[in-house]
Amino acid sequence: MSTEKIPYKIYLSEEELPKQWYNVRADMKKKPAPMLNPGTGKPVTFDDLTPVFCDELVKQELDETTPYIDIPDEILTFYKMYRPSSLVRAYCLEKALGTPAKIYYKFEGNNTSGSHKLNSAIAQAYYAKKQGLKGVTTETGAGQWGTALSMACSYFGLDCRVYMVKVSYEQKPFRREVMRTYGASVTPSPSNTTEVGRKILAEFPDTNGSLGCAISEAVEAAVSTEGYRYVLGSVLSQVLLHQSVIGLESKAAMDKYGIKPDVIIGCAGGGSNLGGLISPFMGEKLRGEADYRIVAVEPASCPSFTRGKYAYDFCDTGKVCPLQKMYTLGSSFMPSPNHAGGLRYHGMSGILSELYDQGLMEAISYEQTQVFEAAQQFARVEGILPAPESSHAIKAAIDEAVRCRETGEEKTILFGLTGTGYFDMYAYAAYNDGTMTDYIPTDEEIAQSFAELPKL
Amino acid sequence: MSTEKIPYKIYLSEEELPKQWYNVRADMKKKPAPMLNPGTGKPVTFDDLTPVFCDELVKQELDETTPYIDIPDEILTFYKMYRPSSLVRAYCLEKALGTPAKIYYKFEGNNTSGSHKLNSAIAQAYYAKKQGLKGVTTETGAGQWGTALSMACSYFGLDCRVYMVKVSYEQKPFRREVMRTYGASVTPSPSNTTEVGRKILAEFPDTNGSLGCAISEAVEAAVSTEGYRYVLGSVLSQVLLHQSVIGLESKAAMDKYGIKPDVIIGCAGGGSNLGGLISPFMGEKLRGEADYRIVAVEPASCPSFTRGKYAYDFCDTGKVCPLQKMYTLGSSFMPSPNHAGGLRYHGMSGILSELYDQGLMEAISYEQTQVFEAAQQFARVEGILPAPESSHAIKAAIDEAVRCRETGEEKTILFGLTGTGYFDMYAYAAYNDGTMTDYIPTDEEIAQSFAELPKL
Repeated sequence: MSTEKIPYKIYLSEEELPKQWYNVRADMKKKPAPMLNPGTGKPVTFDDLTPVFCDELVKQELDETTPYIDIPDEILTFYKMYRPSSLVRAYCLEKALGTPAKIYYKFEGNNTSGSHKLNSAIAQAYYAKKQGLKGVTTETGAGQWGTALSMACSYFGLDCRVYMVKVSYEQKPFRREVMRTYGASVTPSPSNTTEVGRKILAEFPDTNGSLGCAISEAVEAAVSTEGYRYVLGSVLSQVLLHQSVIGLESKAAMDKYGIKPDVIIGCAGGGSNLGGLISPFMGEKLRGEADYRIVAVEPASCPSFTRGKYAYDFCDTGKVCPLQKMYTLGSSFMPSPNHAGGLRYHGMSGILSELYDQGLMEAISYEQTQVFEAAQQFARVEGILPAPESSHAIKAAIDEAVRCRETGEEKTILFGLTGTGYFDMYAYAAYNDGTMTDYIPTDEEIAQSFAELPKL
Repeated sequence: MSTEKIPYKIYLSEEELPKQWYNVRADMKKKPAPMLNPGTGKPVTFDDLTPVFCDELVKQELDETTPYIDIPDEILTFYKMYRPSSLVRAYCLEKALGTPAKIYYKFEGNNTSGSHKLNSAIAQAYYAKKQGLKGVTTETGAGQWGTALSMACSYFGLDCRVYMVKVSYEQKPFRREVMRTYGASVTPSPSNTTEVGRKILAEFPDTNGSLGCAISEAVEAAVSTEGYRYVLGSVLSQVLLHQSVIGLESKAAMDKYGIKPDVIIGCAGGGSNLGGLISPFMGEKLRGEADYRIVAVEPASCPSFTRGKYAYDFCDTGKVCPLQKMYTLGSSFMPSPNHAGGLRYHGMSGILSELYDQGLMEAISYEQTQVFEAAQQFARVEGILPAPESSHAIKAAIDEAVRCRETGEEKTILFGLTGTGYFDMYAYAAYNDGTMTDYIPTDEEIAQSFAELPKL
């Protein structure tokens, strides 16, 4: 433990970087429920999954017992280009809030993809390359994942085919151009390049597309093209494994200065960032070595933890993917066009769902205007323009720090700042202009999509 | 000197950060020519400048003899939020090029303004606050400087009024929204808020605006509003002083590992980044302690060093600012709409102009399609999406490294990567689509603007 003053930014040297990912499932006594084959209703096997996903990634997906998995050298090399991400002591925010709380954030936005998504993209691209594949397919909504995957594929010389939700393709031309600059082909979805796309276009020629449809197209493109597999940027256990690098670095940096967080906060859409950030801390909690309050923050417009059901559901609207037991609003739930596109997903990681169900973590939700108010406050004092998704965690951290001001508690707060908002300026413009609105789904709407949950 | 392997990114600890700026003029035997009062034709005095600029900044502007100037604590604190910027060893680029050269770049894009401009913005905002001013005015073209100043003013609670060239205001709504998020007011220029703006609008109601006009409006707004001053993001000697932090950090990081650059490369528009990057190295060169090749890179469409004249000229098209002796294409030169907006300026810093005239540095120019080709190559292997401006330096560094491959020389190359290209995706789209064109001004065009240089 160092007794120096805590610097504004704590960096790790290359030697201090994690060399292994941490698989939190290994320390869970009750494991997440297995994914089910939608055809047979039985737990999926290695052979069920390998036509869709890369072999090594399927192994990681199904591995519930190995606690530490070596990060291959090629990935470690890529990580060195943009990692460690900085762990920042938010001195300026603390001062602005007048709080005795100590606020830290792990900032994952300092890479061109603009978010933590690159941590898993580079791993998935590496295993695809190692398997001798020609390329991968994926879908993207807000565009962070598609950008990250384009960067990763360009680095390994893999072809990258991105199905981008049509409305995003048209409204976010800049995201599209970043992907093209990295050599990816970007197709607005639904498209006439797949059977499912053609079918949807025939039925709804004016559709704006949806994430569910884009997933279905990407999966079809992968399984029907020689030498291709499908990759996914969240929800899956393999993704949480890769993202554990966030938490491992955070913990190493805090340990270096003898800092122990009381509360750990992250935004949660599919769960990739939150799961990665909390993993080593949750491991200590599961092993009874330490205790932490862990808080998931989600948009009130898409509240899978706070208003969802813990049940088996499809991961995609097209119902082509395996069934996963998770907190879900139902795969037919249509979230309102909230600006935090990365949190607009009907379900939640199976690992996080099980941990939440066991009472090992909490969840809260916020409306988007509150979230942008916090984002602006943060930007003005800490200098970083946060992504709308990340700003959910900022809002929760600020609220916690304000409570500390009232009670006088000197809590240590750690939150994940997953990315930057450079490509979200339409959202900021709506907030600046006072035209941003909030939307909370009614109980009836949620009940309607619950009614369509698969009967097992 | 450390004998460890050079890491991918060399960071300095907070203790190793520069505590003083370096004023390269102190080591110049022949100083830059003085600015002249356009009314009297005589060197400007402190009293000439203080109605327009903050007192302390005028002192810095006129100080040719103090080599080191303390960075105030408040600015050091702000610097700690985003500095040190990383000095990166471009291992992946070296490998892709198959060069024996060792390539380093100093990356200034990891802050929300997206560029090095914040280094001077925070200093200028600080001195304005210290003088008890209410606010500052400025102009912005591409938007990097306006964004940086908005962030700095927000931090110190100063009002910030930005005149944004009308065509940029309309074509870069995202830049505008970032500034608004930081609380700045952004006015498209020409506007009816100033006399000069109204005059221009009456004469040319359909004008797209120009940087020259925006400067004139910002200066008028400052001198006619109680408690306001005008601030400028490049060209001035005070700006190069603040930007010396880039070079000082680079040199400290290189010294730590015993690295000595053979060639130092930077893009040059008004000269703020190049002047900052090279300053401590140029200091050694001026004192005869070391030798370095120093290369300025400019767009072929706006070639002030390579095709300009070393003469007294106006800094703005509106001819309201003092006359400065500089390499210039003439203040009436209208650069083609090259995508590197930050390099689209008719003149060059007086300090750099004098150093260039003394043969202490070189200059080259590139056309924009060549530059974007280098940008894309760099992005794909080094992961960072560079700004078009910065990519001029990338192109020159790649060319130098390729020459080393041919000659077998193991040169050490250092270049400045000034910023990110997130707000330049229209330019990347044009490159991706193959619709980007080049433009080189004819000798006749340049002769025409030379003819309008002021006669002294």
